[in-house]
Amino acid sequence: MQEILPGIWKLTLGRPETHTPVRHRLRKPAAKPAFAALPAAGDCPLAAAEIRGGATTRGYELFLPMRDDEQFYGLGLQLLSFDQRGRKKTLRVNSDPCVDLGDSHAPVPFYVSTRGYAVLVDTYRYATFNFGGAVPKHDRSADTAVQPAAAVNTNLETLYSGHAGPAAASVAVEVPAARGVTVYVFAGPAMLESVRRYNLFSGGGCLPPRWGLGVWYRCCGTFDQQQAAAMAADFRRADLPCDVLGLEPGWQTHAYSCSHVWSKKFPAPADLVRTLAAQGYHVNLWTHAFTHAASPLYRSLYEHSGDYEVWKGLTPDFVQPETRRIFGEFYDRTHVALGVSGYKLDECDGSDFIATPWSFPEISRFPSGLDGEQMHSAIGLHFQETIDQLYRRRNLRTYNEVRNSHALAAPYPFVLYSDLYDHRQFLRGVVNQGFSGLLWCPEVRHAASAEELIRRIQAAALSPQALINAWYIKNPPWKQWDRQKNNADELVPNHAEVEAACRDIFRLRMSLVPYLYSAFFRYWSEGLPPFRALVLDYPTDPQAATVDDQWLVGDRLLVAPVVANTGNRRTVYLPAGDWFDFWIGARMEGGRKHEIEVPLGQIPIYVKDGALLPLAEPGLHAADPAGLRLTVRVYGDGCLPLTLIEDDGVTYDFEKGAYNRLDLTWDPAAKTGAATRTGTTSSVPAYTVTTWRPGPMCGRHSCLSSA
Amino acid sequence: MQEILPGIWKLTLGRPETHTPVRHRLRKPAAKPAFAALPAAGDCPLAAAEIRGGATTRGYELFLPMRDDEQFYGLGLQLLSFDQRGRKKTLRVNSDPCVDLGDSHAPVPFYVSTRGYAVLVDTYRYATFNFGGAVPKHDRSADTAVQPAAAVNTNLETLYSGHAGPAAASVAVEVPAARGVTVYVFAGPAMLESVRRYNLFSGGGCLPPRWGLGVWYRCCGTFDQQQAAAMAADFRRADLPCDVLGLEPGWQTHAYSCSHVWSKKFPAPADLVRTLAAQGYHVNLWTHAFTHAASPLYRSLYEHSGDYEVWKGLTPDFVQPETRRIFGEFYDRTHVALGVSGYKLDECDGSDFIATPWSFPEISRFPSGLDGEQMHSAIGLHFQETIDQLYRRRNLRTYNEVRNSHALAAPYPFVLYSDLYDHRQFLRGVVNQGFSGLLWCPEVRHAASAEELIRRIQAAALSPQALINAWYIKNPPWKQWDRQKNNADELVPNHAEVEAACRDIFRLRMSLVPYLYSAFFRYWSEGLPPFRALVLDYPTDPQAATVDDQWLVGDRLLVAPVVANTGNRRTVYLPAGDWFDFWIGARMEGGRKHEIEVPLGQIPIYVKDGALLPLAEPGLHAADPAGLRLTVRVYGDGCLPLTLIEDDGVTYDFEKGAYNRLDLTWDPAAKTGAATRTGTTSSVPAYTVTTWRPGPMCGRHSCLSSA
Repeated sequence: MQEILPGIWKLTLGRPETHTPVRHRLRKPAAKPAFAALPAAGDCPLAAAEIRGGATTRGYELFLPMRDDEQFYGLGLQLLSFDQRGRKKTLRVNSDPCVDLGDSHAPVPFYVSTRGYAVLVDTYRYATFNFGGAVPKHDRSADTAVQPAAAVNTNLETLYSGHAGPAAASVAVEVPAARGVTVYVFAGPAMLESVRRYNLFSGGGCLPPRWGLGVWYRCCGTFDQQQAAAMAADFRRADLPCDVLGLEPGWQTHAYSCSHVWSKKFPAPADLVRTLAAQGYHVNLWTHAFTHAASPLYRSLYEHSGDYEVWKGLTPDFVQPETRRIFGEFYDRTHVALGVSGYKLDECDGSDFIATPWSFPEISRFPSGLDGEQMHSAIGLHFQETIDQLYRRRNLRTYNEVRNSHALAAPYPFVLYSDLYDHRQFLRGVVNQGFSGLLWCPEVRHAASAEELIRRIQAAALSPQALINAWYIKNPPWKQWDRQKNNADELVPNHAEVEAACRDIFRLRMSLVPYLYSAFFRYWSEGLPPFRALVLDYPTDPQAATVDDQWLVGDRLLVAPVVANTGNRRTVYLPAGDWFDFWIGARMEGGRKHEIEVPLGQIPIYVKDGALLPLAEPGLHAADPAGLRLTVRVYGDGCLPLTLIEDDGVTYDFEKGAYNRLDLTWDPAAKTGAATRTGTTSSVPAYTVTTWRPGPMCGRHSCLSSA
Repeated sequence: MQEILPGIWKLTLGRPETHTPVRHRLRKPAAKPAFAALPAAGDCPLAAAEIRGGATTRGYELFLPMRDDEQFYGLGLQLLSFDQRGRKKTLRVNSDPCVDLGDSHAPVPFYVSTRGYAVLVDTYRYATFNFGGAVPKHDRSADTAVQPAAAVNTNLETLYSGHAGPAAASVAVEVPAARGVTVYVFAGPAMLESVRRYNLFSGGGCLPPRWGLGVWYRCCGTFDQQQAAAMAADFRRADLPCDVLGLEPGWQTHAYSCSHVWSKKFPAPADLVRTLAAQGYHVNLWTHAFTHAASPLYRSLYEHSGDYEVWKGLTPDFVQPETRRIFGEFYDRTHVALGVSGYKLDECDGSDFIATPWSFPEISRFPSGLDGEQMHSAIGLHFQETIDQLYRRRNLRTYNEVRNSHALAAPYPFVLYSDLYDHRQFLRGVVNQGFSGLLWCPEVRHAASAEELIRRIQAAALSPQALINAWYIKNPPWKQWDRQKNNADELVPNHAEVEAACRDIFRLRMSLVPYLYSAFFRYWSEGLPPFRALVLDYPTDPQAATVDDQWLVGDRLLVAPVVANTGNRRTVYLPAGDWFDFWIGARMEGGRKHEIEVPLGQIPIYVKDGALLPLAEPGLHAADPAGLRLTVRVYGDGCLPLTLIEDDGVTYDFEKGAYNRLDLTWDPAAKTGAATRTGTTSSVPAYTVTTWRPGPMCGRHSCLSSA
């Protein structure tokens, strides 16, 4: 058991495989001072003797301790479950996980324990984690309880009741094919610190460019250059905040598989990017890795791809530096050099759950030596690296979408998304992302009603990416949320009203950008997930331990979205300490559940007692100077100061210290606030606090009852 | 490539595992004459050079030929799909397969090709079969079609259209952990003969006792001895045919896990069995393998069980002969000796699909050397063997239920069932069972309406087992089909009417017993599945190739059940040749679809033109002499003779020739029928044809339109 970084121990069992997430990592751990800021860890929370392993016919088995009072979270982007105790999960990369088997766009062999530690099993394999189902045999014949009465249960509900099995003493992990495995243990003292250590070990969380935190809109897949430009202009005319316009497959000469080449529909892409930039837009391009024979990349990628095709295209082996160089050079020269700001990396997951499964088979072999199973876990990370490097070399930040990720992903500015659409699952994704160094977007496409549309947009607006993904509709969804009618140009009569409601949500998002940016800065500098489950901040609260439909944004805001199509009421659990209704300003007691009624225009947001919450004037995009003018709301006695970050918002100069801190503090006695700047970077946009606003927002209370 | 039996070839690739279905087989292939009756096979339909394999890091990969015009069926009890081309299936044993991934109560690594051959991959592993998704890379840059127009598709439906990938040239199979595998190829000339060869290779199909083909009723789990006896008496008073009464867990002192011991609720089990036998009933006992410490078997099984518990019970290693002996001896002495006629072997599958997964983990090890993955595939077969041997030794046939099976299962008189309940899936199970040497029961439990109840019972009555599984209701479902109301004794007002409708269905089942028995005899002697997909008998008919909601019973009857809750109409596809409506007698043209309307009392059954269909007088149970008195319906010119089998119906003496054949023939000119007996076994019950009935049954036509 070797302590490789403060509070991080490494244990190697057997002979681990050559190809693993840590061995293939392309980002270094965060610098030492970041770790030093964490509480001292003391001894490793797990003793080496408590971790056993052994090679089997099937691979490598691994046993880690499990206590009776212990709960587990993590395993990546699990959309179908939250707490993992008693469950068995096989971490397969898969696009359509309609059953809770462990399949995910981004499975991560990493779990967090309520006992205040976390474990990374360093493997690309489809490892199985058994949290309590594997109970070793032991002789029970001497137990006093083994002689049951000769007459049994007459209760039908309990007669067939063996299904609630006893807990095991171990977390049993099985890694297929391997003959050994390396395990990393991350100390707390509590869960949140173990997650922070993992994120810092990964390299620290990403800090998106400020524009990445604005509103995103992906255009219809059939749009040409003119239609995309027209939609962008429409948004500005309609006063709709939007920072990023996404183009779907139609920009390429061939897609499924991809040529990666601009089609005739986009005859002057540089002009388009320039025109849009003048209006404050960034351009994002849909793409995928599988490369069609029509692509100029085909011949040079041929030897750098796997031995199976996907959609008649090559599967690039991004694990090879040369593949990343070839692919990246073409992308840099033909897109990034034109001003394209990022990508949507589609289809890098694959599906076994649909009638016609797709992607390369697990029996594939790649020039780097990975097999198909390993590559399914690795391709997302290495595709992200390929793209991210293009921008890093230009000292530009980027923010992107991706459909596959895995371990050590925190430094990558990529947000996961899905073709699935269950809103409850989408919300759980936001809650679960923060355990495993991931970002997830509960994107909005269509809806059955204006109400559903608005509830969905509200949740997206309080997530890592406020994305309207209109790839299959010609008109914005607020003009018609039904897919077929939208494409038939049958707009709803009251679309101006619905648009106004959506505008309000987008303006809320823009108001929160300074706060979000500050939270992301802490993701980078402290490994602190900007969006996370309540249980991470309230690890000893048994009620918080089960909440998977509410999340924290930073440590001052609690969001409890209304699930689409469930009406205007919901139950909200507020952890210990008082909270304030963001809309009404009313004080609400923590440590209990509240039944709330929520008008359609409001997403339930609660502000921590004592918080100082800066809200910017909502501009149309991140570079709008309005976004620098702040109102600071003061909750309670305002005893919780907040630090905002000022930098250029687009380069990596912040990594070299080119940023200022703006500390917001409140003097309750004098009822005055102060904004104190630390740092001497003069060339960056500076915030101005125009108003300090203590006290409640209005009088009406949205809480019906408290329990 | 070694021809080991007529038309069966064996090919060994690499170093196969020690533990496989064929290596562990406990039944010999059928005797040579059975194979000799099949058409001559000629050369192996697959050349050895067409089958490639190789060891990988993950296990063993295997490639078999796949032609453009080839369709595939089989892989065991697949409830969610029928034709397998383009699909990828991993053959895991699993109880709750709610997604079409290959998981099944009875996955079988065996597939049948429309090119007239079948393949068995001899493995207990969770092998993956990829029927077309794995396309090897080849240089396409010289293709003329690779330079697409610079403008792409503007159709949203096809823009993201890569999902329909091209077909591969191979069936790619991956066997985890193995370093080699043995493949068996079964010749046709057509699919049905390849399936017959597989069934004969397995040892020939089972011939159930005649009583097994009657009606089954499983009592409520809470019943005691008196309640079970009372229900049996009620059925007789109500004139309800019933051959088997099943007892659920309550008969044991401890269940979940099992003690295997009669509880106080059944103080005199021998009396109960005797009382029931006097009324024509057989008794079947629910049980499972996992053995509680309270069981007298616990200590002796301890060393003969795996290293993980299930529900605090031991997992017996039935692959060891000694385990079968220990377990069997106890069952024989304490149940079979009392007259118990068979078992329901529950829970031998396991589930990963529910919140609390159960069963032994794949990392288990067993004294026989199998690991948990292998044992999951083997346990059902070896548990069946353990039970079946008890009866074989007593020269008694048995008929049972089981929830897990695998390859080479045809000789075992066990019918698969499920806790799932989707009726459409249940029907597909009946269609698919016949490809892989399995039997499946679409059992009836509860219903949302009388209509649903009746449609479900109709389908069950035309399946291998006519089972009402009332384990969670106190009153028969025809008195109340709603589970909660049933247990609250809130009976429906018109229950007499619904009971009458059910009685009619049971009487139909009893009328068909001679025909079914004859079909099962051919399963034993010829390997011919008694229930099978249309495509097996009509392999060149492209419409039959997709029909997964109709099946053949023997080769004279076609059943097209109405799916529960879909109304009274459905589309029926009748293959080439004329067919007769069983109820109306109207002639219907084959080779086309018919829209039919079906009164609730009728299950759509069609009789082949020329068929002689014997229908017995419906008795209350199999031993009722009424069942020997036959009316033979003559369809068309009656040119298709039928052979009935007369034997004692309960012993294995038929294997030594102790049976008569009764050939039914019809002289269309003289309009007279003949029943000609072959064989001299005088001690067995003999059929009497009381009536020959040519011509239509009645005048009303149920067919609305034909297309």
